[in-house]
Amino acid sequence: MEIQVMEDILGRNDQLASENQMLFAKRGVFVLNLMGSPGSGKTSLLEKTMAALKDNLRMAVIEGDLFTSKDADRIAKYDVPVIQINTSGGCHLDAAMVQKVLQELDLENLDLLVVENVGNLVCPAEFNVGEDVKAVVLSITEGDDKPLKYPLIFKESAIAVLNKVDLLPYTNFDMAAAKKDITSIHPAISVLEVSCTSSTGVEAWYDWLKEKVAAKKMAVNAHG
Amino acid sequence: MEIQVMEDILGRNDQLASENQMLFAKRGVFVLNLMGSPGSGKTSLLEKTMAALKDNLRMAVIEGDLFTSKDADRIAKYDVPVIQINTSGGCHLDAAMVQKVLQELDLENLDLLVVENVGNLVCPAEFNVGEDVKAVVLSITEGDDKPLKYPLIFKESAIAVLNKVDLLPYTNFDMAAAKKDITSIHPAISVLEVSCTSSTGVEAWYDWLKEKVAAKKMAVNAHG
Repeated sequence: MEIQVMEDILGRNDQLASENQMLFAKRGVFVLNLMGSPGSGKTSLLEKTMAALKDNLRMAVIEGDLFTSKDADRIAKYDVPVIQINTSGGCHLDAAMVQKVLQELDLENLDLLVVENVGNLVCPAEFNVGEDVKAVVLSITEGDDKPLKYPLIFKESAIAVLNKVDLLPYTNFDMAAAKKDITSIHPAISVLEVSCTSSTGVEAWYDWLKEKVAAKKMAVNAHG
Repeated sequence: MEIQVMEDILGRNDQLASENQMLFAKRGVFVLNLMGSPGSGKTSLLEKTMAALKDNLRMAVIEGDLFTSKDADRIAKYDVPVIQINTSGGCHLDAAMVQKVLQELDLENLDLLVVENVGNLVCPAEFNVGEDVKAVVLSITEGDDKPLKYPLIFKESAIAVLNKVDLLPYTNFDMAAAKKDITSIHPAISVLEVSCTSSTGVEAWYDWLKEKVAAKKMAVNAHG
């Protein structure tokens, strides 16, 4: 019976996610649903990205958090429009929460919208918010066993950012094993080694993002 | 309406948790609900604890995981009874899941039962499983902003283990600020600085556990 309730919730969410997706498609906005554990470095990656790309891409951010606006405050420093969604304890964002705040964004003049989800390696992967792709950030300090333990989020994500690689020398993280597990779960996934502290690999991340944004624009122009 | 469903689920869970708790009380077993993000070091802390205390305490472990038995396999090496619960994607353990496996444990001959929850800093804090106390493990690599961002789990926990302090020199984690935030959320909480890699602080953790187990035994004997 509880499963029935869950299916109803997911079905309704998919409906609203489709509505969001159609709106984004009409405006040619590429939307990224950014997920990962608490402290994996999602906001740090976004900060780097804002600083590096804000002159090339018109960006906005929706920040999901249980109660605070700590991450939104960090993003706002980069002069990028940011909207805070507080889930009041809810463990993930859903399509309805995102839909509610979309009117506050100037979608017409936007290239990239990043939705930073609540820090959680489980629930966010189950709920589409209307994004083009999902991305998962995994800190190497979390351990190389995490892909097999939390497979859904890697299966759902188009890219996995293995973050904090500057700490590799001080941990027993097996990079080859982690990559093998991630690609066994999802053969088509992109995997990047990144450190927001040392800036290792961030260029590859920017390139990946810029390509995705450009591809979305082309697809929209082709249909429009 | 969704909130109503949530309240029903929580109400039913509390009922089953009480049943578990009465059973544990009758047998004099101290039960710890061990929570924390993926990769915070819950299983590593348990491994240290098994190795150090298994000659003094009769222990058993219930391992919660989405799909795998990776953590149970690690615990089983210490010759401690371990039961795996796979939640099939569910983001936390609940009282019903724990109740179902209790018959497989020899509660009569047990001092300490540790329930290692699914790696998640949000949902596990909302569901009692019948434990005496909850404990939260936070890796310092997750960042010092996490207590204020995930307050419920710190409010619900009797002890916060700040793990991986061997990595402090390589991060910008502010220990004083983190402790201040944790105790502002929950003034009576115990806070320990621990490293399972360097064994810093593990003795204080063992002492805390041993005291709790002894207190439970005394309380049960006083009532028996």
